[in-house]
Amino acid sequence: MSVRKLVRGDGPVVVGGAYNAISASLVERAGFDAVWLSSFGVSVAERALPDANLITLSEMLHVGRNMVAAVDIPVIADCENGYGDINNTVHTVREFERAGISAVCVDDNQYPKRCSLFDHGDRQLVSIPEMVDKIKAAKDVQRSEEFTFIARTEALIAGHEVGECVERSSAYLEAGADLLVIHSKSWPHLLKVLGGWKAPDSLVVIPTMFPEVDLERLRGAGFKVVIYANQAIRASLKAMEEVLAKLRQTGRADEVEADILTLGRIHELVRFEDVQNNGRR
Amino acid sequence: MSVRKLVRGDGPVVVGGAYNAISASLVERAGFDAVWLSSFGVSVAERALPDANLITLSEMLHVGRNMVAAVDIPVIADCENGYGDINNTVHTVREFERAGISAVCVDDNQYPKRCSLFDHGDRQLVSIPEMVDKIKAAKDVQRSEEFTFIARTEALIAGHEVGECVERSSAYLEAGADLLVIHSKSWPHLLKVLGGWKAPDSLVVIPTMFPEVDLERLRGAGFKVVIYANQAIRASLKAMEEVLAKLRQTGRADEVEADILTLGRIHELVRFEDVQNNGRR
Amino acid sequence: MSVRKLVRGDGPVVVGGAYNAISASLVERAGFDAVWLSSFGVSVAERALPDANLITLSEMLHVGRNMVAAVDIPVIADCENGYGDINNTVHTVREFERAGISAVCVDDNQYPKRCSLFDHGDRQLVSIPEMVDKIKAAKDVQRSEEFTFIARTEALIAGHEVGECVERSSAYLEAGADLLVIHSKSWPHLLKVLGGWKAPDSLVVIPTMFPEVDLERLRGAGFKVVIYANQAIRASLKAMEEVLAKLRQTGRADEVEADILTLGRIHELVRFEDVQNNGRR
Amino acid sequence: MSVRKLVRGDGPVVVGGAYNAISASLVERAGFDAVWLSSFGVSVAERALPDANLITLSEMLHVGRNMVAAVDIPVIADCENGYGDINNTVHTVREFERAGISAVCVDDNQYPKRCSLFDHGDRQLVSIPEMVDKIKAAKDVQRSEEFTFIARTEALIAGHEVGECVERSSAYLEAGADLLVIHSKSWPHLLKVLGGWKAPDSLVVIPTMFPEVDLERLRGAGFKVVIYANQAIRASLKAMEEVLAKLRQTGRADEVEADILTLGRIHELVRFEDVQNNGRR
Repeated sequence: MSVRKLVRGDGPVVVGGAYNAISASLVERAGFDAVWLSSFGVSVAERALPDANLITLSEMLHVGRNMVAAVDIPVIADCENGYGDINNTVHTVREFERAGISAVCVDDNQYPKRCSLFDHGDRQLVSIPEMVDKIKAAKDVQRSEEFTFIARTEALIAGHEVGECVERSSAYLEAGADLLVIHSKSWPHLLKVLGGWKAPDSLVVIPTMFPEVDLERLRGAGFKVVIYANQAIRASLKAMEEVLAKLRQTGRADEVEADILTLGRIHELVRFEDVQNNGRR
Repeated sequence: MSVRKLVRGDGPVVVGGAYNAISASLVERAGFDAVWLSSFGVSVAERALPDANLITLSEMLHVGRNMVAAVDIPVIADCENGYGDINNTVHTVREFERAGISAVCVDDNQYPKRCSLFDHGDRQLVSIPEMVDKIKAAKDVQRSEEFTFIARTEALIAGHEVGECVERSSAYLEAGADLLVIHSKSWPHLLKVLGGWKAPDSLVVIPTMFPEVDLERLRGAGFKVVIYANQAIRASLKAMEEVLAKLRQTGRADEVEADILTLGRIHELVRFEDVQNNGRR
Repeated sequence: MSVRKLVRGDGPVVVGGAYNAISASLVERAGFDAVWLSSFGVSVAERALPDANLITLSEMLHVGRNMVAAVDIPVIADCENGYGDINNTVHTVREFERAGISAVCVDDNQYPKRCSLFDHGDRQLVSIPEMVDKIKAAKDVQRSEEFTFIARTEALIAGHEVGECVERSSAYLEAGADLLVIHSKSWPHLLKVLGGWKAPDSLVVIPTMFPEVDLERLRGAGFKVVIYANQAIRASLKAMEEVLAKLRQTGRADEVEADILTLGRIHELVRFEDVQNNGRR
Repeated sequence: MSVRKLVRGDGPVVVGGAYNAISASLVERAGFDAVWLSSFGVSVAERALPDANLITLSEMLHVGRNMVAAVDIPVIADCENGYGDINNTVHTVREFERAGISAVCVDDNQYPKRCSLFDHGDRQLVSIPEMVDKIKAAKDVQRSEEFTFIARTEALIAGHEVGECVERSSAYLEAGADLLVIHSKSWPHLLKVLGGWKAPDSLVVIPTMFPEVDLERLRGAGFKVVIYANQAIRASLKAMEEVLAKLRQTGRADEVEADILTLGRIHELVRFEDVQNNGRR
């Protein structure tokens, strides 16, 4: 199953963010349609680093491969700005497609980017022609027809007008992007963009900053794909922070038994019986 | 601070298990004295695989390096059976010490091992002379005096008698092991071993299977180091399983907001301000 | 093109050993049919370590992926003893096939193995039933029909009789191995094995220790696939040793200009014009 | 031994370029004072890719670690433009120093850079204040006093005047760079820069494009450190190209025996006897 096939269906495509193999597996088991390999998640989880183009293409790819090995649903990689210019973007597509990743998402931030969720007075986007060239070159080098290129504009995040955002959005889709994320911290802003534009059914939304807008409303507003990008890692961190504090303060492991998964359930999750069965042939 | 220095103190050394950089960082922030780089944790988290010598020394080292970069407390690596014979064990010590790891733990399982927490009729240990040779060779090649070698006997797990367990324990310490884990699924068994032996103050316990024995009792029984090996990952998995299910079933991200860490707190954890400050010079 | 397709042709399949992406590319450019990802080569080149199961599956896979990205001919991975038992072998097949490797070669040495080209009184093989189980399990988990499993018996290297070698060879092919290497340091020994057995046209030879037997004779004796496993790395090391000595001793870079490739030729090899063209769009 | 200590001596410090562990080891055995971890070399050898910021910090670090494990002389890493902005440069210093690398070299190209040895009309440098900030921040975060920061100006390569080149050179040294490379394809250009400037004894030269200027003249002109950056890889490629062609065309392995290193010599290089001795304890 590819992302492109998922998008051909009627309903919304619901994607869950993950940052390692087991979180990807839990996303799949919870019934999501695809996994979002989050650069924020990998920066935080694997490196304890902020999401600021510090982790490399290699580090993302390493996690991406481990996810592909662990799940059957498609994996969509957040490839930030394609890690540089047109050559880096072409290289990115080749590397991620070869690794079995189903789709890449590339945004129009200049490299190095800043995390989209915080203010930066100096956020700079690449020009429209430069981004269009990146998209065309990326689409040229993919091997499988099914490989999906998601363009992402950070125009709203960078403080640009709705008009600029619509212009970028149209240009990116026209250049061949299969899907489009109009990144935004504000739901009303996003609605304004949608209002000023007869958008095709290829829009993706990442509702991190407006969690009160539910799936039905997102689909109703015209979004085909909804990415819940970071709830899993945030759940993980909260739980670990609490359990570790309790354990350290009380010195009692039984105090946290109710807050942690049983070993039996974990062995189900990782198919421990496969190893046992091979060993017993 | 090294593991050896920690052990010279009076109190128990309390170690928290982790499996990536951020869980190591949370272990440190919760006040643990050291981090346990868990092979179980890395197998499950990074690969969604059972803990059965499937992940490689390289995969453990990759995570270990990311931990060393993220924390100031010592990192202790669970190196299973040293990934093979005496040559592999020597190589293991070189690789982990060079990576900034403070201590390795090597057990007397034959390679490939089985996870210690489940029954296997066919669990085989290496002979005492072979394990003694491994320990001596390992101690020979460490570069820093502070580097710590923890030997671990799986004699009880493999179903051997208390006498065999004591014999192995004494031999490993005499061969130069700095610390010793007598791995056990049963607290009474462990007490029997302690009873039959005038043990030095260099014993380590991993109380996964007897969480009801608290820190004070463990120290009272003679254990110098207590490793809470897998509570963090188990907390993480339980939380993600629940949050992802709720999110997928309701389609409402606001339903899980109370169960997930705020982005602001995450930015504190990863020192986001460092990046901002550099950018603003 | 897969290894299986190559083998269906009439002529000998000629394979060149490599140890990084550029040596694989040179093997391809020289007209070889496939690349041999050599564990000896990777141990020596990437780690300056002897070939003794010190390098990990991950390290081999890392190089293998870089080769797959660099060449169009199939890559055959020397996976030693499958890095452990039946579970490790199954894992090996999954990892290498997923990485785009076309074939794996797994031998019947016990883990950890010793390099086949030097004497070891204590070389131990796994039992025939254990190896047969490995082969069956490996063939069960491959995804593509075209993926090729090469079994390799070290019976002659370990000093066993021709009869034992034939017995192992037959058993491995019967268990499903697509191709078979009867490893040997001696051409006459190998001829004896062939004489005592009506061998199918699926034999592979690695003539490192009998370079005087040419390709035509090897094919004439019944070998379908010939692997020149380590000539490339050995050429590389000899040339570097000489050029570096001359450069250091004379302090004259022009003295070695005739012994080194031009930068222009290197840029052809790595298709530098691709980057320039993208940059100029 | 650190690069800083080497530089305190009287004579020239002679550095040999390498791209994997064994070439680094051969550089050491040939009597060079330090190893240059070449981005050109790693791009070409490990990935068969042009040197255009396509390979990542991770890929360089991976090779760098393998070198550190293999040699006792210091390793100097060619870190291009620091892989991005000031934050990436700070991250680069942390990562390479932690890996045991003795020095990094960071240039003033904008990311992504182009290979310095070919013309690009559009080569852009970062501003002097931006580069000065990078250098100061980099020097701030190093842990050991001995860690060495080498600044490299590409002003001449980018076609700037001698004055601009001197201005940049002075500014970088004043900002705290320990050593300085004035990269140039032309020896006369370089002499002009030296003539217009009372340079300190901390200059580094990479004489790839003027091999006719020998070590004595380079030292006489005021260069403290001479880096022979790519002769080893170029020797390797030339030898492999020739040997593989001969082998494939003749089908005779004995034809190339004189052109390849003996297995015995290779086993000396990788200290095979260490493994044998451990195994025999």
